[in-house]
Amino acid sequence: MSLFKNDLILRAARREPVERTPVWMMRQAGRYLPQYRAVREGRSFLEMCKTPELATEVTLQPVDLIGVDAAIIFSDILVIPEAMGSNLELIESKGPVIYNPVRTASDVENLKVIDAVSDLGYVLDAIRMTKKQLNNRVPLIGFSGAPWTLLTYMVEGGSSKSFKFSKSMIMDQPKTAHRLLKDLSFAISDYLIAQVEAGADIIQIFDSWASALDPVYYEEFGLPYIEFIVDSLKVLDVPVIVFAKGANASLERLSKSGAHVLGLDWTISLAEAKSRVGNSVALQGNMDPSFLYSSPESIEREVKRILSLWGPETGHIFNLGHGILPDVPPDHAKAMVNAVKQFSVR
Amino acid sequence: MSLFKNDLILRAARREPVERTPVWMMRQAGRYLPQYRAVREGRSFLEMCKTPELATEVTLQPVDLIGVDAAIIFSDILVIPEAMGSNLELIESKGPVIYNPVRTASDVENLKVIDAVSDLGYVLDAIRMTKKQLNNRVPLIGFSGAPWTLLTYMVEGGSSKSFKFSKSMIMDQPKTAHRLLKDLSFAISDYLIAQVEAGADIIQIFDSWASALDPVYYEEFGLPYIEFIVDSLKVLDVPVIVFAKGANASLERLSKSGAHVLGLDWTISLAEAKSRVGNSVALQGNMDPSFLYSSPESIEREVKRILSLWGPETGHIFNLGHGILPDVPPDHAKAMVNAVKQFSVR
Repeated sequence: MSLFKNDLILRAARREPVERTPVWMMRQAGRYLPQYRAVREGRSFLEMCKTPELATEVTLQPVDLIGVDAAIIFSDILVIPEAMGSNLELIESKGPVIYNPVRTASDVENLKVIDAVSDLGYVLDAIRMTKKQLNNRVPLIGFSGAPWTLLTYMVEGGSSKSFKFSKSMIMDQPKTAHRLLKDLSFAISDYLIAQVEAGADIIQIFDSWASALDPVYYEEFGLPYIEFIVDSLKVLDVPVIVFAKGANASLERLSKSGAHVLGLDWTISLAEAKSRVGNSVALQGNMDPSFLYSSPESIEREVKRILSLWGPETGHIFNLGHGILPDVPPDHAKAMVNAVKQFSVR
Repeated sequence: MSLFKNDLILRAARREPVERTPVWMMRQAGRYLPQYRAVREGRSFLEMCKTPELATEVTLQPVDLIGVDAAIIFSDILVIPEAMGSNLELIESKGPVIYNPVRTASDVENLKVIDAVSDLGYVLDAIRMTKKQLNNRVPLIGFSGAPWTLLTYMVEGGSSKSFKFSKSMIMDQPKTAHRLLKDLSFAISDYLIAQVEAGADIIQIFDSWASALDPVYYEEFGLPYIEFIVDSLKVLDVPVIVFAKGANASLERLSKSGAHVLGLDWTISLAEAKSRVGNSVALQGNMDPSFLYSSPESIEREVKRILSLWGPETGHIFNLGHGILPDVPPDHAKAMVNAVKQFSVR
């Protein structure tokens, strides 16, 4: 018997029978919630991440307020680069900035080798505190950015539209890129194992910028490192979700990575994705996050449409195809969650 | 016998034999060229579009300076919305702004029904002038935005990341969206026919924001209107290129639209796209525009790789997978064009 009051997401991830489809939202602990903004007021994003009491408080908000079937620890994918030496600032209006970008072989060599327990202990503390306060109501998701995505931030010095420096690195200095990706893979693997040891019940790896690469280059600079990390997590008894945003061309290979679940954005039909991966993995997604701007009636219709593309069997975790947007009305998020709960009952 | 000195692009578009692969670049008449910036200095983008002498001058620059196998008339996809009543400003640093967005049924009803000859005569004048000065060295590409892409700008009031208003419109007011798309389709069709009558030798339809929609919605709000436009151009003896950026899920259906060529971005392998569309259409693309930041040696290697994915037969037009970026060194663009010319000889 499960120790959780609600373990739907863990069962769906392992394709075990479920009474209904579980649902959560990427960025569910975030700015669309007035209660989040109240906690955040006057504090930097990194201060929130590094103060376990605050991280715990906002992690629990969507469980209480929206009724999602999982919590995801409040943190940021860039905590690893920061621990490795990136001089990071998260600026609300313009996204992350890294003041000392990594551009050469010696920049990569000078990065710090991190130890998750000593360097990222604040995340582990937040996980332990959250687990206590969650009291097994729902499982807790731990997460990390994937190596390619973290590389882009470190090399560009923040967000990018063109990926000028990271794409030049893979073309002109492929060995340097591979060295950085390898170093990141070890750090991420260590970090995720530490998250599970601290209490995370399920893991998601975010490759948010998978979509930036031609599939051939993604299969060289993205996928092998995800495969390494997934492999390193096999010793642990937790399901792993890989969300390689936009990497639809690589779905078949991703389905053989050992991940239990693949996340999908909304540029592929759930029915097509399901037919392409067969019964090898569960799928998570994939409602267009912008559809949460439409009326609750339209949202309900869209939820029904996506549920019907999947059908009655287990193996689907309902989610948005990307993070919830900051100006979505919380009632619309609730309308989506309630519709999944109502219309997916087996 | 062809009246052109170089008609490679027309033959490749019709899958007729070619001595080598033709090559051009989206946004080839643009800011990466110092000679373009010199003409542009102190002038607005719209002033350039509306002054046939200036539009002609910059249209010819990449033919002379970079050696591309086609010219594309210098203009903007937003000239149609402007003619229909959008109060448009093209601001270099932040993209287009439309001060009177279209959000309701009555906003759509109040749009002007345009006549290309009287309302967009400045584009037709620029085409006539360019044709004269080109003197049949290479063919001239005419173009328009696709209905869905133009809708997003008109409804959002400019560029958008979330497509908040346009996606709400298709969800909550689908009839209004369809009415606007239909009105745009008639205007675009009329405009493209007028471009051909003025001298355009080949047409490209840009659906730059196809990628924003779930394929099911793209097949409702995007594709049928492209099909209508392509169909309306059938009476003319010009090849039509459809570039539905990122709509890889809809490739098969697009290949049955009657378009002669489909444009591809770099998120799909050219080999995969070729095998999916079979021998029904030619393909255009698809080098990652950011790879032009890398060294000429890397650019040459990448050109060879893409050419080898296609093989020796006709039916491939080499291009970037999106517009050339404004800070690319012109020599790098030239390295790409020269590599295509050198390594694609049959």
